[in-house]
Amino acid sequence: MTTSVKVFGSPASTEVQRVLACLFEKNVKFQLVKMDNFKGSTRRPEYLKMQPGGEALAYQDEKGSLVESRAICRHVVNSFPNQGTMDLLGEGAMEKALIEQWLETEMHKFDPPSSELVFYLSIAPTLPEQDPKDDSSLVAASKKKLEKVLKLYNQRLADSPYLTGDKFTLADLSHLPNTEKLMSIKELQEMFGKYDHVRRWWVDISERGPWQKVLEVAKQAPPLA
Amino acid sequence: MTTSVKVFGSPASTEVQRVLACLFEKNVKFQLVKMDNFKGSTRRPEYLKMQPGGEALAYQDEKGSLVESRAICRHVVNSFPNQGTMDLLGEGAMEKALIEQWLETEMHKFDPPSSELVFYLSIAPTLPEQDPKDDSSLVAASKKKLEKVLKLYNQRLADSPYLTGDKFTLADLSHLPNTEKLMSIKELQEMFGKYDHVRRWWVDISERGPWQKVLEVAKQAPPLA
Repeated sequence: MTTSVKVFGSPASTEVQRVLACLFEKNVKFQLVKMDNFKGSTRRPEYLKMQPGGEALAYQDEKGSLVESRAICRHVVNSFPNQGTMDLLGEGAMEKALIEQWLETEMHKFDPPSSELVFYLSIAPTLPEQDPKDDSSLVAASKKKLEKVLKLYNQRLADSPYLTGDKFTLADLSHLPNTEKLMSIKELQEMFGKYDHVRRWWVDISERGPWQKVLEVAKQAPPLA
Repeated sequence: MTTSVKVFGSPASTEVQRVLACLFEKNVKFQLVKMDNFKGSTRRPEYLKMQPGGEALAYQDEKGSLVESRAICRHVVNSFPNQGTMDLLGEGAMEKALIEQWLETEMHKFDPPSSELVFYLSIAPTLPEQDPKDDSSLVAASKKKLEKVLKLYNQRLADSPYLTGDKFTLADLSHLPNTEKLMSIKELQEMFGKYDHVRRWWVDISERGPWQKVLEVAKQAPPLA
Protein backbone atom coordinates (compact mmCIF):
# COMPACT_ATOMS: atom_id res chain seq x y z
CA MET A 1 0.00 0.00 0.00
CA THR A 2 1.49 3.35 -0.98
CA THR A 3 -0.21 6.50 0.19
CA SER A 4 0.86 10.03 1.00
CA VAL A 5 -1.70 10.28 3.81
CA LYS A 6 -0.22 9.79 7.26
CA VAL A 7 -1.85 10.09 10.69
CA PHE A 8 0.41 10.45 13.73
CA GLY A 9 -1.08 9.53 17.10
CA SER A 10 -2.52 6.82 19.31
CA PRO A 11 -5.59 4.94 18.03
CA ALA A 12 -6.90 4.99 21.62
CA SER A 13 -7.31 8.80 21.53
CA THR A 14 -10.74 10.26 20.76
CA GLU A 15 -9.17 12.92 18.49
CA VAL A 16 -7.30 10.30 16.45
CA GLN A 17 -10.38 8.05 16.31
CA ARG A 18 -12.43 10.93 14.83
CA VAL A 19 -9.90 11.29 12.01
CA LEU A 20 -9.68 7.53 11.39
CA ALA A 21 -13.51 7.27 11.24
CA CYS A 22 -13.54 9.94 8.55
CA LEU A 23 -10.71 8.32 6.56
CA PHE A 24 -12.52 4.94 6.62
CA GLU A 25 -15.85 6.58 5.62
CA LYS A 26 -14.11 8.26 2.67
CA ASN A 27 -12.28 5.05 1.79
CA VAL A 28 -8.89 6.80 1.92
CA LYS A 29 -5.76 4.70 2.27
CA PHE A 30 -3.50 6.00 5.03
CA GLN A 31 -0.56 5.07 7.18
CA LEU A 32 -0.97 5.27 10.95
CA VAL A 33 2.27 6.25 12.71
CA LYS A 34 1.75 5.33 16.35
CA MET A 35 2.90 8.07 18.74
CA ASP A 36 3.20 7.59 22.45
CA ASN A 37 2.89 10.70 24.65
CA PHE A 38 4.31 8.86 27.63
CA LYS A 39 7.40 7.67 25.81
CA GLY A 40 8.21 11.19 24.62
CA SER A 41 7.84 10.53 20.90
CA THR A 42 5.71 13.67 20.63
CA ARG A 43 8.60 15.79 21.97
CA ARG A 44 10.99 15.01 19.11
CA PRO A 45 12.00 18.14 17.12
CA GLU A 46 10.87 16.75 13.74
CA TYR A 47 7.41 16.02 15.20
CA LEU A 48 7.17 19.43 16.92
CA LYS A 49 7.75 21.13 13.57
CA MET A 50 4.47 19.59 12.38
CA GLN A 51 2.62 19.72 15.71
CA PRO A 52 4.05 22.66 17.76
CA GLY A 53 1.70 21.94 20.68
CA GLY A 54 3.33 18.51 21.08
CA GLU A 55 -0.02 16.75 21.18
CA ALA A 56 -0.54 13.27 19.82
CA LEU A 57 -2.42 14.04 16.63
CA ALA A 58 -1.05 15.27 13.35
CA TYR A 59 -2.07 14.66 9.74
CA GLN A 60 0.09 14.91 6.67
CA ASP A 61 -0.57 14.62 2.95
CA GLU A 62 1.15 15.90 -0.19
CA LYS A 63 -0.44 19.35 0.36
CA GLY A 64 0.87 19.93 3.90
CA SER A 65 0.23 19.06 7.52
CA LEU A 66 -2.58 19.81 9.97
CA VAL A 67 -3.51 19.37 13.62
CA GLU A 68 -7.04 19.49 15.23
CA SER A 69 -9.33 16.57 14.44
CA ARG A 70 -12.42 18.30 13.03
CA ALA A 71 -10.33 20.53 10.74
CA ILE A 72 -8.54 17.40 9.48
CA CYS A 73 -11.90 15.69 8.84
CA ARG A 74 -13.15 18.67 6.83
CA HIS A 75 -9.92 18.64 4.81
CA VAL A 76 -10.26 14.88 4.12
CA VAL A 77 -13.88 15.31 2.97
CA ASN A 78 -12.91 18.21 0.67
CA SER A 79 -9.80 16.42 -0.66
CA PHE A 80 -11.60 13.20 -1.67
CA PRO A 81 -15.01 14.37 -2.91
CA ASN A 82 -15.66 11.46 -5.27
CA GLN A 83 -15.04 8.38 -3.13
CA GLY A 84 -16.51 6.68 -0.08
CA THR A 85 -19.52 8.16 1.72
CA MET A 86 -20.74 11.23 -0.16
CA ASP A 87 -21.78 14.65 1.12
CA LEU A 88 -20.40 14.34 4.66
CA LEU A 89 -20.28 18.16 4.66
CA GLY A 90 -23.57 18.54 2.78
CA GLU A 91 -24.77 20.18 -0.39
CA GLY A 92 -26.41 23.58 -0.67
CA ALA A 93 -25.95 26.59 1.59
CA MET A 94 -28.39 25.73 4.38
CA GLU A 95 -27.48 22.04 4.62
CA LYS A 96 -23.79 22.96 4.87
CA ALA A 97 -24.59 25.61 7.49
CA LEU A 98 -26.64 23.16 9.58
CA ILE A 99 -23.80 20.64 9.55
CA GLU A 100 -21.46 23.39 10.76
CA GLN A 101 -23.95 24.31 13.46
CA TRP A 102 -24.18 20.75 14.82
CA LEU A 103 -20.42 20.30 14.55
CA GLU A 104 -20.07 23.39 16.73
CA THR A 105 -22.69 22.11 19.19
CA GLU A 106 -20.75 18.84 19.41
CA MET A 107 -17.52 20.67 20.10
CA HIS A 108 -18.89 23.40 22.34
CA LYS A 109 -21.52 21.54 24.37
CA PHE A 110 -21.14 17.78 23.94
CA ASP A 111 -17.37 17.30 23.94
CA PRO A 112 -16.44 19.20 27.15
CA PRO A 113 -18.69 17.31 29.63
CA SER A 114 -18.12 14.01 27.76
CA SER A 115 -14.35 14.31 27.93
CA GLU A 116 -14.48 15.23 31.61
CA LEU A 117 -16.73 12.27 32.44
CA VAL A 118 -14.57 9.82 30.49
CA PHE A 119 -11.53 11.14 32.32
CA TYR A 120 -12.98 11.08 35.86
CA LEU A 121 -15.02 7.88 35.60
CA SER A 122 -12.94 5.76 33.28
CA ILE A 123 -9.31 6.92 33.05
CA ALA A 124 -8.56 8.50 36.46
CA PRO A 125 -9.41 5.32 38.45
CA THR A 126 -6.73 3.44 36.46
CA LEU A 127 -3.96 5.98 37.13
CA PRO A 128 -1.56 5.70 40.07
CA GLU A 129 -3.08 7.83 42.82
CA GLN A 130 -1.05 10.99 43.36
CA ASP A 131 -3.13 13.50 45.21
CA PRO A 132 -6.49 11.93 46.10
CA LYS A 133 -9.25 14.52 45.60
CA ASP A 134 -12.99 14.42 45.74
CA ASP A 135 -14.11 14.81 42.13
CA SER A 136 -17.80 14.24 42.84
CA SER A 137 -18.88 17.86 42.33
CA LEU A 138 -17.04 18.04 39.00
CA VAL A 139 -18.65 14.79 37.89
CA ALA A 140 -22.11 16.01 38.93
CA ALA A 141 -21.64 19.29 37.04
CA SER A 142 -20.54 17.46 33.87
CA LYS A 143 -23.46 15.03 34.11
CA LYS A 144 -25.86 17.95 34.33
CA LYS A 145 -24.32 19.58 31.24
CA LEU A 146 -24.38 16.31 29.29
CA GLU A 147 -28.00 15.64 30.22
CA LYS A 148 -28.97 19.12 28.98
CA VAL A 149 -27.39 18.49 25.59
CA LEU A 150 -28.89 14.98 25.31
CA LYS A 151 -32.36 16.48 25.83
CA LEU A 152 -31.69 18.90 22.97
CA TYR A 153 -30.44 16.04 20.76
CA ASN A 154 -33.45 13.87 21.61
CA GLN A 155 -35.78 16.67 20.59
CA ARG A 156 -33.89 17.13 17.31
CA LEU A 157 -33.63 13.38 16.57
CA ALA A 158 -37.39 12.96 17.05
CA ASP A 159 -37.75 14.84 13.74
CA SER A 160 -35.01 13.26 11.62
CA PRO A 161 -32.81 10.14 11.63
CA TYR A 162 -29.59 12.17 11.81
CA LEU A 163 -28.70 15.47 13.44
CA THR A 164 -28.91 17.49 10.24
CA GLY A 165 -31.60 15.55 8.37
CA ASP A 166 -31.87 12.32 6.37
CA LYS A 167 -28.16 11.76 5.81
CA PHE A 168 -25.27 10.73 8.03
CA THR A 169 -22.78 13.62 8.05
CA LEU A 170 -19.60 14.78 9.77
CA ALA A 171 -21.81 16.22 12.53
CA ASP A 172 -22.95 12.69 13.49
CA LEU A 173 -19.51 11.14 12.91
CA SER A 174 -17.86 13.63 15.24
CA HIS A 175 -19.82 12.21 18.20
CA LEU A 176 -18.62 8.63 17.75
CA PRO A 177 -15.37 8.52 19.78
CA ASN A 178 -16.65 10.18 22.96
CA THR A 179 -20.00 8.37 22.89
CA GLU A 180 -18.31 4.98 22.48
CA LYS A 181 -16.28 5.70 25.64
CA LEU A 182 -19.30 7.02 27.55
CA MET A 183 -21.21 3.86 26.66
CA SER A 184 -18.61 1.74 28.42
CA ILE A 185 -19.49 3.48 31.71
CA LYS A 186 -22.63 1.92 33.24
CA GLU A 187 -24.21 5.07 34.71
CA LEU A 188 -23.79 6.97 31.45
CA GLN A 189 -25.15 4.12 29.37
CA GLU A 190 -28.21 4.42 31.63
CA MET A 191 -28.38 8.18 31.04
CA PHE A 192 -28.34 7.70 27.25
CA GLY A 193 -30.95 4.92 27.66
CA LYS A 194 -33.51 7.46 28.88
CA TYR A 195 -33.54 9.22 25.50
CA ASP A 196 -35.24 7.00 22.91
CA HIS A 197 -34.26 8.93 19.81
CA VAL A 198 -30.68 9.39 20.94
CA ARG A 199 -30.45 5.66 21.65
CA ARG A 200 -31.82 4.76 18.20
CA TRP A 201 -29.38 7.22 16.57
CA TRP A 202 -26.43 5.81 18.53
CA VAL A 203 -27.22 2.22 17.48
CA ASP A 204 -27.43 3.37 13.85
CA ILE A 205 -24.21 5.38 13.69
CA SER A 206 -22.11 3.05 15.86
CA GLU A 207 -22.94 -0.01 13.75
CA ARG A 208 -21.50 1.58 10.60
CA GLY A 209 -18.64 -0.43 9.06
CA PRO A 210 -16.09 2.40 9.12
CA TRP A 211 -16.57 2.94 12.86
CA GLN A 212 -16.27 -0.78 13.53
CA LYS A 213 -12.92 -0.67 11.68
CA VAL A 214 -11.73 2.12 14.00
CA LEU A 215 -12.58 -0.03 17.01
CA GLU A 216 -10.61 -2.93 15.48
CA VAL A 217 -7.56 -0.68 15.03
CA ALA A 218 -7.93 0.63 18.62
CA LYS A 219 -8.17 -2.93 19.99
CA GLN A 220 -4.79 -3.78 18.51
CA ALA A 221 -3.19 -0.91 20.42
CA PRO A 222 -2.58 -0.69 24.15
CA PRO A 223 -5.53 1.25 25.65
CA LEU A 224 -3.59 4.28 26.87
CA ALA A 225 -0.65 4.30 24.45
CA MET B 1 -33.01 49.90 5.84
CA THR B 2 -34.70 46.69 4.72
CA THR B 3 -32.87 43.42 5.22
CA SER B 4 -33.83 39.81 5.75
CA VAL B 5 -30.85 39.24 8.06
CA LYS B 6 -31.74 39.29 11.74
CA VAL B 7 -29.59 38.59 14.78
CA PHE B 8 -31.31 37.82 18.09
CA GLY B 9 -29.28 38.33 21.25
CA SER B 10 -27.49 40.76 23.52
CA PRO B 11 -24.65 42.83 22.01
CA ALA B 12 -22.78 42.33 25.29
CA SER B 13 -22.43 38.58 24.67
CA THR B 14 -19.18 37.25 23.17
CA GLU B 15 -21.11 34.89 20.88
CA VAL B 16 -23.27 37.72 19.51
CA GLN B 17 -20.24 40.00 19.15
CA ARG B 18 -18.48 37.36 17.01
CA VAL B 19 -21.45 37.31 14.61
CA LEU B 20 -21.71 41.12 14.52
CA ALA B 21 -17.97 41.44 13.77
CA CYS B 22 -18.41 39.12 10.81
CA LEU B 23 -21.50 40.95 9.51
CA PHE B 24 -19.68 44.31 9.70
CA GLU B 25 -16.56 42.83 7.98
CA LYS B 26 -18.79 41.52 5.17
CA ASN B 27 -20.70 44.81 5.00
CA VAL B 28 -24.04 43.00 5.47
CA LYS B 29 -27.05 45.00 6.57
CA PHE B 30 -28.84 43.36 9.50
CA GLN B 31 -31.38 43.99 12.18
CA LEU B 32 -30.37 43.32 15.79
CA VAL B 33 -33.28 42.09 17.92
CA LYS B 34 -32.17 42.57 21.51
CA MET B 35 -32.94 39.54 23.68
CA ASP B 36 -32.60 39.53 27.42
CA ASN B 37 -31.99 36.18 29.13
CA PHE B 38 -32.89 37.61 32.51
CA LYS B 39 -36.23 38.99 31.38
CA GLY B 40 -37.26 35.65 29.90
CA SER B 41 -37.48 36.77 26.27
CA THR B 42 -35.45 33.70 25.30
CA ARG B 43 -38.12 31.41 26.82
CA ARG B 44 -40.94 32.52 24.50
CA PRO B 45 -42.28 29.65 22.32
CA GLU B 46 -41.69 31.45 19.00
CA TYR B 47 -38.04 32.05 19.97
CA LEU B 48 -37.55 28.46 21.19
CA LYS B 49 -38.68 27.17 17.78
CA MET B 50 -35.64 28.89 16.29
CA GLN B 51 -33.25 28.37 19.24
CA PRO B 52 -34.36 25.18 21.09
CA GLY B 53 -31.57 25.55 23.67
CA GLY B 54 -33.08 28.88 24.76
CA GLU B 55 -29.74 30.66 24.52
CA ALA B 56 -29.43 34.29 23.54
CA LEU B 57 -28.10 33.94 20.01
CA ALA B 58 -29.99 33.11 16.87
CA TYR B 59 -29.56 34.16 13.26
CA GLN B 60 -32.20 34.27 10.57
CA ASP B 61 -32.16 35.05 6.86
CA GLU B 62 -34.36 34.15 3.91
CA LYS B 63 -32.75 30.67 3.75
CA GLY B 64 -33.47 29.64 7.35
CA SER B 65 -32.23 30.05 10.90
CA LEU B 66 -29.08 29.03 12.75
CA VAL B 67 -27.56 29.04 16.22
CA GLU B 68 -23.82 28.75 17.22
CA SER B 69 -21.67 31.77 16.43
CA ARG B 70 -18.86 30.26 14.33
CA ALA B 71 -21.32 28.31 12.15
CA ILE B 72 -23.25 31.55 11.60
CA CYS B 73 -20.03 33.38 10.65
CA ARG B 74 -19.15 30.66 8.10
CA HIS B 75 -22.65 30.92 6.65
CA VAL B 76 -22.42 34.74 6.40
CA VAL B 77 -19.03 34.50 4.62
CA ASN B 78 -20.39 31.90 2.17
CA SER B 79 -23.65 33.80 1.59
CA PHE B 80 -22.03 37.14 0.72
CA PRO B 81 -18.86 36.18 -1.19
CA ASN B 82 -18.58 39.37 -3.25
CA GLN B 83 -18.82 42.14 -0.67
CA GLY B 84 -16.85 43.48 2.28
CA THR B 85 -13.60 41.81 3.38
CA MET B 86 -12.73 39.01 0.96
CA ASP B 87 -11.51 35.47 1.60
CA LEU B 88 -12.30 35.32 5.33
CA LEU B 89 -12.47 31.54 4.87
CA GLY B 90 -9.52 31.43 2.45
CA GLU B 91 -8.87 30.21 -1.05
CA GLY B 92 -7.33 26.89 -2.02
CA ALA B 93 -7.44 23.62 -0.11
CA MET B 94 -4.58 24.15 2.33
CA GLU B 95 -5.40 27.76 3.17
CA LYS B 96 -9.01 26.79 3.90
CA ALA B 97 -7.81 23.84 6.01
CA LEU B 98 -5.44 26.02 8.02
CA ILE B 99 -8.23 28.49 8.77
CA GLU B 100 -10.37 25.59 9.98
CA GLN B 101 -7.48 24.37 12.12
CA TRP B 102 -6.99 27.73 13.84
CA LEU B 103 -10.74 28.17 14.25
CA GLU B 104 -10.76 24.83 16.06
CA THR B 105 -7.76 25.82 18.20
CA GLU B 106 -9.61 29.01 19.14
CA MET B 107 -12.70 27.09 20.11
CA HIS B 108 -11.00 24.12 21.74
CA LYS B 109 -8.06 25.74 23.54
CA PHE B 110 -8.47 29.52 23.65
CA ASP B 111 -12.19 29.96 24.32
CA PRO B 112 -12.60 27.67 27.38
CA PRO B 113 -9.98 29.26 29.68
CA SER B 114 -10.79 32.75 28.34
CA SER B 115 -14.50 32.39 29.08
CA GLU B 116 -13.77 31.04 32.55
CA LEU B 117 -11.39 33.89 33.37
CA VAL B 118 -13.81 36.54 32.12
CA PHE B 119 -16.52 34.96 34.24
CA TYR B 120 -14.53 34.61 37.46
CA LEU B 121 -12.52 37.83 37.28
CA SER B 122 -14.93 40.20 35.62
CA ILE B 123 -18.54 39.04 35.83
CA ALA B 124 -18.75 37.05 39.10
CA PRO B 125 -17.56 39.95 41.31
CA THR B 126 -20.49 42.05 40.03
CA LEU B 127 -23.16 39.42 40.81
CA PRO B 128 -25.05 39.33 44.10
CA GLU B 129 -23.13 36.90 46.28
CA GLN B 130 -25.08 33.68 46.73
CA ASP B 131 -22.75 30.96 47.91
CA PRO B 132 -19.27 32.41 48.43
CA LYS B 133 -16.67 29.93 47.18
CA ASP B 134 -12.94 30.05 46.72
CA ASP B 135 -12.42 30.13 42.94
CA SER B 136 -8.66 30.64 43.13
CA SER B 137 -7.72 27.12 42.00
CA LEU B 138 -10.09 27.35 39.01
CA VAL B 139 -8.65 30.73 38.08
CA ALA B 140 -5.08 29.42 38.38
CA ALA B 141 -5.87 26.40 36.18
CA SER B 142 -7.45 28.60 33.51
CA LYS B 143 -4.52 31.02 33.57
CA LYS B 144 -2.15 28.12 33.02
CA LYS B 145 -4.17 26.86 30.04
CA LEU B 146 -4.40 30.35 28.54
CA GLU B 147 -0.67 30.93 28.94
CA LYS B 148 0.06 27.65 27.14
CA VAL B 149 -2.05 28.66 24.16
CA LEU B 150 -0.58 32.20 24.08
CA LYS B 151 2.91 30.69 23.83
CA LEU B 152 1.76 28.65 20.84
CA TYR B 153 0.20 31.74 19.24
CA ASN B 154 3.32 33.82 19.85
CA GLN B 155 5.44 31.18 18.13
CA ARG B 156 3.03 31.12 15.18
CA LEU B 157 2.69 34.93 14.97
CA ALA B 158 6.48 35.32 14.87
CA ASP B 159 6.27 33.88 11.34
CA SER B 160 3.25 35.67 9.90
CA PRO B 161 1.11 38.75 10.64
CA TYR B 162 -2.06 36.68 11.09
CA LEU B 163 -2.71 33.19 12.43
CA THR B 164 -3.03 31.59 9.02
CA GLY B 165 -0.67 33.78 6.98
CA ASP B 166 -0.70 37.22 5.39
CA LYS B 167 -4.43 37.82 5.51
CA PHE B 168 -6.92 38.54 8.29
CA THR B 169 -9.42 35.64 8.35
CA LEU B 170 -12.27 34.24 10.40
CA ALA B 171 -9.66 32.49 12.56
CA ASP B 172 -8.35 35.87 13.75
CA LEU B 173 -11.81 37.45 13.95
CA SER B 174 -13.09 34.68 16.18
CA HIS B 175 -10.66 35.73 18.94
CA LEU B 176 -11.88 39.34 19.14
CA PRO B 177 -14.75 39.17 21.68
CA ASN B 178 -12.98 37.13 24.36
CA THR B 179 -9.68 38.97 23.97
CA GLU B 180 -11.37 42.37 24.26
CA LYS B 181 -12.86 41.27 27.60
CA LEU B 182 -9.59 39.72 28.82
CA MET B 183 -7.82 43.00 28.03
CA SER B 184 -10.08 44.85 30.44
CA ILE B 185 -8.69 42.73 33.32
CA LYS B 186 -5.33 44.12 34.49
CA GLU B 187 -3.57 40.82 35.27
CA LEU B 188 -4.54 39.33 31.90
CA GLN B 189 -3.49 42.43 30.00
CA GLU B 190 -0.11 41.89 31.69
CA MET B 191 -0.09 38.24 30.62
CA PHE B 192 -0.73 39.19 26.97
CA GLY B 193 1.93 41.91 27.29
CA LYS B 194 4.63 39.27 27.75
CA TYR B 195 4.10 37.94 24.23
CA ASP B 196 5.37 40.49 21.68
CA HIS B 197 3.89 38.94 18.57
CA VAL B 198 0.52 38.31 20.21
CA ARG B 199 0.44 41.93 21.40
CA ARG B 200 1.26 43.27 17.92
CA TRP B 201 -1.45 41.00 16.41
CA TRP B 202 -4.01 42.11 18.98
CA VAL B 203 -3.39 45.83 18.27
CA ASP B 204 -3.75 45.13 14.54
CA ILE B 205 -7.00 43.11 14.67
CA SER B 206 -8.69 45.13 17.42
CA GLU B 207 -8.18 48.43 15.59
CA ARG B 208 -10.13 47.25 12.55
CA GLY B 209 -13.17 49.40 11.76
CA PRO B 210 -15.71 46.56 11.88
CA TRP B 211 -14.63 45.57 15.41
CA GLN B 212 -14.80 49.18 16.58
CA LYS B 213 -18.38 49.26 15.28
CA VAL B 214 -19.22 46.19 17.40
CA LEU B 215 -17.86 47.96 20.48
CA GLU B 216 -20.04 51.00 19.65
CA VAL B 217 -23.14 48.79 19.44
CA ALA B 218 -22.21 47.06 22.72
CA LYS B 219 -21.72 50.42 24.46
CA GLN B 220 -25.28 51.42 23.67
CA ALA B 221 -26.57 48.30 25.43
CA PRO B 222 -26.58 47.63 29.16
CA PRO B 223 -23.44 45.54 29.89
CA LEU B 224 -25.20 42.37 31.04
CA ALA B 225 -28.47 42.62 29.13
